[in-house]
Amino acid sequence: MLEKTLTHKVVNSRIRPASDMAVLSRREIEQLRDVTGTGLHLLFRKCALAVLSSGSQIDNCEELMSMYPDFDIQVQERHQGIVLEVRNAPASAFVDNQLIEGIRYHLFSVLRDILYLRETASTHKNLSPSLQTSHEIFYRLRHAGAFHPGVTPNTVVCWGGHSIPVVEYDYTKETGYYLGLRGIDICTGCGAGAMKGPMKGAAIAHAKQRHLSGRHIGLTEPGIIAAEAPNAIVNELVVMPDIEKRLEAFIRLGHVLVIFPGGVGTLEELLFVLGVLLHPENHQVDLPIFLTGPQESSEYFDAVTRFIEMTLGSTALNLVRKVIGDPQLVARLVNESLDHVTRARRKNDESFHYNWSLHIDSAFQEPFVPDHEAMSRLALNRELPTQDLAANIRRALSGIVSGNVKEQGIDAIRQHGPFQLRGEAALMQAMDELLDSFARQGRMKVSGDYTPCYEIVPA
Amino acid sequence: MLEKTLTHKVVNSRIRPASDMAVLSRREIEQLRDVTGTGLHLLFRKCALAVLSSGSQIDNCEELMSMYPDFDIQVQERHQGIVLEVRNAPASAFVDNQLIEGIRYHLFSVLRDILYLRETASTHKNLSPSLQTSHEIFYRLRHAGAFHPGVTPNTVVCWGGHSIPVVEYDYTKETGYYLGLRGIDICTGCGAGAMKGPMKGAAIAHAKQRHLSGRHIGLTEPGIIAAEAPNAIVNELVVMPDIEKRLEAFIRLGHVLVIFPGGVGTLEELLFVLGVLLHPENHQVDLPIFLTGPQESSEYFDAVTRFIEMTLGSTALNLVRKVIGDPQLVARLVNESLDHVTRARRKNDESFHYNWSLHIDSAFQEPFVPDHEAMSRLALNRELPTQDLAANIRRALSGIVSGNVKEQGIDAIRQHGPFQLRGEAALMQAMDELLDSFARQGRMKVSGDYTPCYEIVPA
Amino acid sequence: MLEKTLTHKVVNSRIRPASDMAVLSRREIEQLRDVTGTGLHLLFRKCALAVLSSGSQIDNCEELMSMYPDFDIQVQERHQGIVLEVRNAPASAFVDNQLIEGIRYHLFSVLRDILYLRETASTHKNLSPSLQTSHEIFYRLRHAGAFHPGVTPNTVVCWGGHSIPVVEYDYTKETGYYLGLRGIDICTGCGAGAMKGPMKGAAIAHAKQRHLSGRHIGLTEPGIIAAEAPNAIVNELVVMPDIEKRLEAFIRLGHVLVIFPGGVGTLEELLFVLGVLLHPENHQVDLPIFLTGPQESSEYFDAVTRFIEMTLGSTALNLVRKVIGDPQLVARLVNESLDHVTRARRKNDESFHYNWSLHIDSAFQEPFVPDHEAMSRLALNRELPTQDLAANIRRALSGIVSGNVKEQGIDAIRQHGPFQLRGEAALMQAMDELLDSFARQGRMKVSGDYTPCYEIVPA
Amino acid sequence: MLEKTLTHKVVNSRIRPASDMAVLSRREIEQLRDVTGTGLHLLFRKCALAVLSSGSQIDNCEELMSMYPDFDIQVQERHQGIVLEVRNAPASAFVDNQLIEGIRYHLFSVLRDILYLRETASTHKNLSPSLQTSHEIFYRLRHAGAFHPGVTPNTVVCWGGHSIPVVEYDYTKETGYYLGLRGIDICTGCGAGAMKGPMKGAAIAHAKQRHLSGRHIGLTEPGIIAAEAPNAIVNELVVMPDIEKRLEAFIRLGHVLVIFPGGVGTLEELLFVLGVLLHPENHQVDLPIFLTGPQESSEYFDAVTRFIEMTLGSTALNLVRKVIGDPQLVARLVNESLDHVTRARRKNDESFHYNWSLHIDSAFQEPFVPDHEAMSRLALNRELPTQDLAANIRRALSGIVSGNVKEQGIDAIRQHGPFQLRGEAALMQAMDELLDSFARQGRMKVSGDYTPCYEIVPA
Repeated sequence: MLEKTLTHKVVNSRIRPASDMAVLSRREIEQLRDVTGTGLHLLFRKCALAVLSSGSQIDNCEELMSMYPDFDIQVQERHQGIVLEVRNAPASAFVDNQLIEGIRYHLFSVLRDILYLRETASTHKNLSPSLQTSHEIFYRLRHAGAFHPGVTPNTVVCWGGHSIPVVEYDYTKETGYYLGLRGIDICTGCGAGAMKGPMKGAAIAHAKQRHLSGRHIGLTEPGIIAAEAPNAIVNELVVMPDIEKRLEAFIRLGHVLVIFPGGVGTLEELLFVLGVLLHPENHQVDLPIFLTGPQESSEYFDAVTRFIEMTLGSTALNLVRKVIGDPQLVARLVNESLDHVTRARRKNDESFHYNWSLHIDSAFQEPFVPDHEAMSRLALNRELPTQDLAANIRRALSGIVSGNVKEQGIDAIRQHGPFQLRGEAALMQAMDELLDSFARQGRMKVSGDYTPCYEIVPA
Repeated sequence: MLEKTLTHKVVNSRIRPASDMAVLSRREIEQLRDVTGTGLHLLFRKCALAVLSSGSQIDNCEELMSMYPDFDIQVQERHQGIVLEVRNAPASAFVDNQLIEGIRYHLFSVLRDILYLRETASTHKNLSPSLQTSHEIFYRLRHAGAFHPGVTPNTVVCWGGHSIPVVEYDYTKETGYYLGLRGIDICTGCGAGAMKGPMKGAAIAHAKQRHLSGRHIGLTEPGIIAAEAPNAIVNELVVMPDIEKRLEAFIRLGHVLVIFPGGVGTLEELLFVLGVLLHPENHQVDLPIFLTGPQESSEYFDAVTRFIEMTLGSTALNLVRKVIGDPQLVARLVNESLDHVTRARRKNDESFHYNWSLHIDSAFQEPFVPDHEAMSRLALNRELPTQDLAANIRRALSGIVSGNVKEQGIDAIRQHGPFQLRGEAALMQAMDELLDSFARQGRMKVSGDYTPCYEIVPA
Repeated sequence: MLEKTLTHKVVNSRIRPASDMAVLSRREIEQLRDVTGTGLHLLFRKCALAVLSSGSQIDNCEELMSMYPDFDIQVQERHQGIVLEVRNAPASAFVDNQLIEGIRYHLFSVLRDILYLRETASTHKNLSPSLQTSHEIFYRLRHAGAFHPGVTPNTVVCWGGHSIPVVEYDYTKETGYYLGLRGIDICTGCGAGAMKGPMKGAAIAHAKQRHLSGRHIGLTEPGIIAAEAPNAIVNELVVMPDIEKRLEAFIRLGHVLVIFPGGVGTLEELLFVLGVLLHPENHQVDLPIFLTGPQESSEYFDAVTRFIEMTLGSTALNLVRKVIGDPQLVARLVNESLDHVTRARRKNDESFHYNWSLHIDSAFQEPFVPDHEAMSRLALNRELPTQDLAANIRRALSGIVSGNVKEQGIDAIRQHGPFQLRGEAALMQAMDELLDSFARQGRMKVSGDYTPCYEIVPA
Repeated sequence: MLEKTLTHKVVNSRIRPASDMAVLSRREIEQLRDVTGTGLHLLFRKCALAVLSSGSQIDNCEELMSMYPDFDIQVQERHQGIVLEVRNAPASAFVDNQLIEGIRYHLFSVLRDILYLRETASTHKNLSPSLQTSHEIFYRLRHAGAFHPGVTPNTVVCWGGHSIPVVEYDYTKETGYYLGLRGIDICTGCGAGAMKGPMKGAAIAHAKQRHLSGRHIGLTEPGIIAAEAPNAIVNELVVMPDIEKRLEAFIRLGHVLVIFPGGVGTLEELLFVLGVLLHPENHQVDLPIFLTGPQESSEYFDAVTRFIEMTLGSTALNLVRKVIGDPQLVARLVNESLDHVTRARRKNDESFHYNWSLHIDSAFQEPFVPDHEAMSRLALNRELPTQDLAANIRRALSGIVSGNVKEQGIDAIRQHGPFQLRGEAALMQAMDELLDSFARQGRMKVSGDYTPCYEIVPA
């Protein structure tokens, strides 16, 4: 009777907090129990289930909820602090009925961040909305203990698909290994694939280097936590309020970006950061970006860089550096880049731990709700300032991701037909070709044949 | 050329934070610099000077400010975090131009708490004002890291005068020693005298017991920090917003109270806690109180207990236990009391770290501003419920302290003559006698002959 | 210019000790420099090179020495302690010219143990030779910090081949993973294959369990350190004086044994422990043994258990438990066994950290030098007490290992022809068949075709 | 019923080791139980009683033994290691029947060092006896964990009387305070008076500086441990084999010497170090010595320096620096001296942790047994090389200490009359005057009137 066969087996347990994350006020406990009607309990239950399902293949929140319909989690006050009373939780999170320690940490991280969700909603009312948002992200990260002031820049953000072929996964692992040998910390969006590989590799390397305090930071948000549940190597988990704040957190917290192969989501992230960096106020900002993968993924990167050049021009292209099939070289180049970043921050007395100098327009901060109208209104032509074009392409991609895999998007497509994208003909064609090549490479996460959820209509 | 002779010598220095207390947002830095006009800079400067003057004999804020007129402190952003730029600071805080580490910690504690001062002003608006206040205190203490969940109750609050004879000071030290031998943590109001002695004794005992994590908690507030600057043994400093919240913090954080001889201030604290405990809802609450001092102070305690019995009755008297001249016995009894408290909290699943079960009326939470009118309106007679009478006597004493030593109070007396207290004749006489005996014992902190700042007028 | 291509590239470096292992007396430094003619330098150099070659494919000391002929290591005294001056060392041990931390630790472990080699030669002269040896092993392990008193038994010794097929290697890794999830520590003989797999798996599991102090103990000896250089996950390395003391250290330090597929060496180890446990004085001793591997290795284990039953009988067979193709089950059974061991030790007040209760005969302690005469004199028949027969079969196997792969043995065979083994016909045939099956399975580590280095001659 | 009145009250207890000091072999346990007849049990019992009597006023071993005739201590083997079974131990070492942690540490330090006593007797037989001794001391200190390699020199050895007036004791405490503020570690000979004061002061200062790892090293030896039991602030206790090795350990481990007022014993120590430093091979060695005390002890130091100048000349006098009545100045000068020492060690690559560069003649290493014959044979005249004269004066003083306070010496005087000292008349007279002044100042530790235990006879 092996654990393997117990996918749906459930466990009841009482979980004590690992640290002082668990000092809650009476009111906070009531909120999590929803005596107060704030809705926190539902959110907590949903995120908790996602965390407890880490490692399962299910990446859809509703599906998870339906698999564990009787799952519940309640906060209890005890003399030494609180305990979490968990019922009908996925057995895979437990070893001999003991919750895996890493997952326990995630559970309490979720609790910590969810309680803080509305607290900082209205900081510094006299700042511009954009600065308010950047301060809010700062306070959330600080509250989560994500700043280690005084540590020289060594946080590398890794982006890439959460469902990639083995050869690409192994490549991300190897890259992580060589980064880890250099004592570098990894930050990803949680989840599997390119988010897990670098951490796994780095964990082995950290062990060899006796680097006990190596950081494996996972940044997530409630909408994505089920789809990309934190893998158990993540030893710092932060739940941001929404996808835009999560993206901003990545680029203000990380010092170098490494982008592995992925699908539309990864491309969306790349366009986000390019759009930000293309803003005139950011020309002096040093945020090195590497595109890398095994030989087998060179076609992918060729398509991506062609698209960037075509749409955003060579200035954008010059912001990224492509390395194919050489994880050690990536690690060495990243290490050198970290030295550059360190020198620059030191010189300008910019903080090591939060990149205040990045200017981020509201266009990149405001949540984009991809309904049919918003999609059809997107201006997509090269007469726009490049940073604005990047913002709009990102939005279009965001809509396509939604139409492909998010419940709301799929529903909308079912009702109203494909999104209508209009814009400059050459650009639209380039986008179509790119997404088509993604589909051919199997990078569009869909079941069955891939039918685009959008149509290109004459501008 | 000894340090001793350098009382007024000043030092310029750059002070790095000891820990991650120093991760500030750009906005917070601006607030502390007062670019924002929030007035935080003035408050920070005042408290910082008080902290840096720890150990000096000056306990008056204005006097301090006039001794170090050019003192300033500015927050600077640096790549590794922030630094404090200090100019013309008292040299006594430094050893060979290095700030004493304990004082450095205090400086950053002040910064931490001052920044948090207005942040939590409006938590949980749908709670009653009294519960709001209790939650606010909880959040402040948690923010300051004052909760160590899971640690069995062992925090003893020590109250007593900050200017007491050597024989009493030595007694507080010895008591602290025997408490420290039992691994007990000390919490006081900072400052000298009975606030310092127990910590000093406990520090030696902790060293003998290899108890490296012994806590010496100092609770202060901006109005008192200059008069009772934290002694350097304090290893956890918390700045509460005002005197009432500080008092509430004491009795919710501490598990046992030990009251040494003191003056009117100490009596005020005793009446506060008695008033709280006399409330009908608190009859089940276990908060043991010991009055103790050397043989030489037995007269003092006799006067105090006589007064309590006369005014609040034997129920109040039964809440305290008097031990004269036996520090070891005190330590043993305190230890037993801690066991009782632990058992009670465990049984009721009350948290170890914050005494939520204490009911505290708004009467004990609202700041009392002792002007002539408020003083003359105080109801002082034994027909009141005892907890209300206790509250009013405390207010009266608070006014007398103000009239004796606080700038505002002294001014008011000079302008309008003594406060007019009216109330039940017997009670008024008891109070007069008590304060008179304090004056004879030299416990009224005044220079020159003691002239009462109040008159008793027929009710 | 990748590191991959630099196999022979060399590095010069100065290596500081990680800890206080580096406090040497002037005399000890001279010994390591060989000013004293004790021969320690040569031994140190040899072992150091082996450690620095960790991860390479070369497992022969002479070959290593010839690949790095100019390698040298010298101890230098410095004001803060010592440094090791390394010249022409294998570049693979370095990352960007920094020695990998884990390897640095190994280097200083070697230094520590080599210096201690002759110091304890003559402890407790009035004890029996056998007890003297057991005490010596105790002192060496203690000197190396290998005892963690008070920790409940959780050290699992893993034995198996260092050159095994991928499917078996993956199985050892998976088993290590499930052991590690249960917080179990791993002890192996260093090196690759079944010695590395369990550690790698456990390391990942320890990371998931936030088990920062997980132990990966490697026990080696100068003769084997080059062939089985410690993999970098080993975080405690101990060099024992010879192969017999290493074997005794395994079974006195470990609490449960897990034996994966291997070759003659693994079989030798199995016979050692069976011989010890079969001794009448050890009938009460609880030292659980598991044989385990993937389905693909069931033939191997069938052959091994048949041989044990045939030669040592069912009593011996009952000492082992076979589990095929189920790493999780192994982990759960091991965990239960650890509980049994714990209870037994507790009940009898046997120490947790060193199994004093095992009686080990001198026959298992005395180094066996497998020359032609010794081999031909071995009594190999089932009339012997089983523990003696086990001892002699172990010796025969030891000789065969030597004749196959050790320089000295190969030379001897070349000069004098194959070893002559004589003994009971049925037994000799069983042994011949077993080794033949090993050869067919590719488990005899030889280059070219396998020609047995022994002949069976009529008794 | 106070603890104060319980001087003779006794306690039975089981004491677990605090650390891994407690991993003993079966043989070692037998030795401590004296199954082996090595006599270790008696020695352990004696030292253990001394340690458990810390803080009592009894400083005589026989007296202690007779006060606690039923005291015994036995080592028991347990599954988690060992426990010490203590019977009829002085109750003062316990708080509520729990052994004071610092004393527990001392108990296991004694056990550790006593077991090691004979182990290293014969290291490095081919070295000169003098170097052998120096190596032995090195190994003992290393075994006790007394070396912290890499830490820049900051160990100050404090010598002085263990029975001094309050004004002098307070001065030592204040000096310790100012040393501790500078992060300096203290090393003394254990015991009370000038051995305790500096530690107590430094402990308070370390607390203010949050210096949790401040070292308070006590060096003792079996003959003195009862008379000068380690005070509970000592957090590293090392038992050396005899008084000469203890003295050598002081000056090889310490970086600066501070000598407070004391009696003949302190003078003996001063002559030891002067004798060593006067050796021609030590002219380059930097070992700064300060003589210091309050104004009240200036007469004492005048007498001492006059005597040094008269006997050993101005070269010797130049080796010491006298500071009267200024603890802060002492601290500052000591700090500067530590910087000099650091620079010198760095420059010459001399180890920070053990002063190998000091040449110490056998004359200072060989135990001197002060019987009548040895005393009468001492050459005491200024024609000798100064270092030899220093050695002989030290011996003479050692004899006088013995005749005054040690059982053996007192017996000898009772039987054979006073020691006969002969030597150069002027020198003898100087010595007589010095000791006379000590007696007048009450620095000769004798009960009743002081009668010299020696006579000066014509050479």
